[in-house]
Amino acid sequence: MKDVAVIGIGMTKFGELWNQSLRDIFVEAALKAIENSKVDHIDSIYVGTMSSGLFVGQEHIGAVMTDYLGMNPIPATRVESACASGGAAFRQAYLEIASGQSEIVLAGGVEKMTDGADVTESLATAADQEYEVYNGVTFPGLYAMIARAHMHQFGTTREQLAAVAVKNHKNGSMNPNAQFRSQVSLEQVMKSTMVADPLRLLDCSPVSDGAAAVILCSMDAAKKFTNNPIKVIASAQASDTITLHSRESLTTLKAVSAAAVKAYKQAGIKPADINFAEAHDCFTIAEIVITEELGFFEKGKGGAAVEQGLTSLNGKIPINSSGGLKSKGHPVGATGIAQIIELYEQLTGKAGDRQVNNARIGLAQNMGGSGASCIIHILEAI
Amino acid sequence: MKDVAVIGIGMTKFGELWNQSLRDIFVEAALKAIENSKVDHIDSIYVGTMSSGLFVGQEHIGAVMTDYLGMNPIPATRVESACASGGAAFRQAYLEIASGQSEIVLAGGVEKMTDGADVTESLATAADQEYEVYNGVTFPGLYAMIARAHMHQFGTTREQLAAVAVKNHKNGSMNPNAQFRSQVSLEQVMKSTMVADPLRLLDCSPVSDGAAAVILCSMDAAKKFTNNPIKVIASAQASDTITLHSRESLTTLKAVSAAAVKAYKQAGIKPADINFAEAHDCFTIAEIVITEELGFFEKGKGGAAVEQGLTSLNGKIPINSSGGLKSKGHPVGATGIAQIIELYEQLTGKAGDRQVNNARIGLAQNMGGSGASCIIHILEAI
Repeated sequence: MKDVAVIGIGMTKFGELWNQSLRDIFVEAALKAIENSKVDHIDSIYVGTMSSGLFVGQEHIGAVMTDYLGMNPIPATRVESACASGGAAFRQAYLEIASGQSEIVLAGGVEKMTDGADVTESLATAADQEYEVYNGVTFPGLYAMIARAHMHQFGTTREQLAAVAVKNHKNGSMNPNAQFRSQVSLEQVMKSTMVADPLRLLDCSPVSDGAAAVILCSMDAAKKFTNNPIKVIASAQASDTITLHSRESLTTLKAVSAAAVKAYKQAGIKPADINFAEAHDCFTIAEIVITEELGFFEKGKGGAAVEQGLTSLNGKIPINSSGGLKSKGHPVGATGIAQIIELYEQLTGKAGDRQVNNARIGLAQNMGGSGASCIIHILEAI
Repeated sequence: MKDVAVIGIGMTKFGELWNQSLRDIFVEAALKAIENSKVDHIDSIYVGTMSSGLFVGQEHIGAVMTDYLGMNPIPATRVESACASGGAAFRQAYLEIASGQSEIVLAGGVEKMTDGADVTESLATAADQEYEVYNGVTFPGLYAMIARAHMHQFGTTREQLAAVAVKNHKNGSMNPNAQFRSQVSLEQVMKSTMVADPLRLLDCSPVSDGAAAVILCSMDAAKKFTNNPIKVIASAQASDTITLHSRESLTTLKAVSAAAVKAYKQAGIKPADINFAEAHDCFTIAEIVITEELGFFEKGKGGAAVEQGLTSLNGKIPINSSGGLKSKGHPVGATGIAQIIELYEQLTGKAGDRQVNNARIGLAQNMGGSGASCIIHILEAI
């Protein structure tokens, strides 16, 4: 396989972008990434979008975006893996360059969720329509069941869940592209509106519009454009049952651990070699379970770890220095690419006030549904 | 790049499959392909679907299908490029193996269009929602404009359009998986219900359910499973404007010609070296324009070619020996994979009554929307 690097990034602010359409925000992010990378051409484009059909009535997203970028006849393909669509788009771009067929590929992600569609119903199409959604469960309910089981089995507390939100809002307050730059207190999280017991409003990532794009390049060609390419040292993906009720345990995310094992093997490293990570905190409980499945903490100790500050910006393993989905926002198709952007900014030392010390190897973990798909990338500053 | 081969195929009958769900038909096709190929494992899965969200309210299709195949934790990704989604899924599987990251990949396509959704509205999301669909045009209208322009510019006749349908229904009558195995006469086509002048009902591909799957394998590993691997000698893709009104000419499909140039270059061959082809005949006029853009006939001569029998099963370059979208059916996400299946059957000499003589190199041309995306694969019997 050819070595692949990330050499440029661009994103919109995440939030309620009512003055811009789906294509507007994608083009904004893509042009920023192209300018940032200084490339002289693009061979191919991938766009991660979960459900542009249901959100804004537009499929064939690859073709739409290439056209609005003024980049015909460059090929463009849309990739979907629910909320892991961005990670999936990045992975396809990586594989295309690794194969040797292309040299420079743009991987982007986009979602426009605030334009009037029924967001809860549209997002629920990431769960099993026949066995879960038909019976009335939606995502806050599914993650609430995971949270209850984790509390029961490991003694995880309501305060530990809240600590994830407090930490991520603190990090996000230092991210100019974050949807919510306000800090929240433990008490505010604990007293916010109940959504699905035990998860409250401030345990949930928001509904967001946003787009993000990165430029990937073969390592050989990267030297033409930058002195500071960030190498992709692992790309791995795994699946789990689409339904929560089919799993042996509600407190494990097998797709995460399976993808992590493959990723560490490809990179030739251990969990302890990771300096910082972006984890898919669609709900606070998700971050706790994910940090366990990635091997950063023993099973059942993820809640205590966040409470003890081990995942804070200056902790043992900073998690979601960007603010995570919780504070930065979660335009579902864009999230996986925004995670890569945070890795790039940290690994190039350009993360400003939220810079992680000695950031050399970072991991991005992007997840679909209640964990039925997981895509992990590991990037290294060389 | 590593060499890649197709080593097994499976598909459902195309048609109105009211007794089976989206997941049922995909699993049926995938299991047939796995059994047909005799592989001992699968590394990864790609699923092409245009709009499962709008058709049946289910996204996250990769995860759903891996689960229902009982194949967790194998990674699975959904790929969308409107009606070229199947070709796009095949291309991603090809690139993953060519990169060396995987050895054996299943590429499938599926669509369930008869379950109650508004098909015309759902399909229209492959056109530009803001500039085309909002103003009332749908796909029969877009292709009718192409047909009128082609008739005006090159003297293409109503009879020549009808000849495409007559030929493809004749071929499809010999395909046990075709939706319509009835032959039609020139007079029947010419007198069928008007849809969008000059296109009549029998100029249009039908609304269909169906699934198709193939197994791709690195050429090195293929020898373990078969004595007859079919080599993928080109995979190419290109884009054109999403809207018809943005094009310099209504009678050219630039994404087709651009992808064809790349494909012939990769394969190191000329149009004349192709023994037969599957072309994306969503409407009769599409096949005529495509055969010109692929370089089989001079610009403007595609209509005369079909009338003279040059594209018939025993003609100079047989087009759509399978029956094409017109007769075989067009479950949009499955179509690109079904084209590959026809190539495989012809190249292994297993196409029965519709076998093309001396079939050694075949081309599959899959297209999205009114031609905004095009994916071409060339396969060779070695």
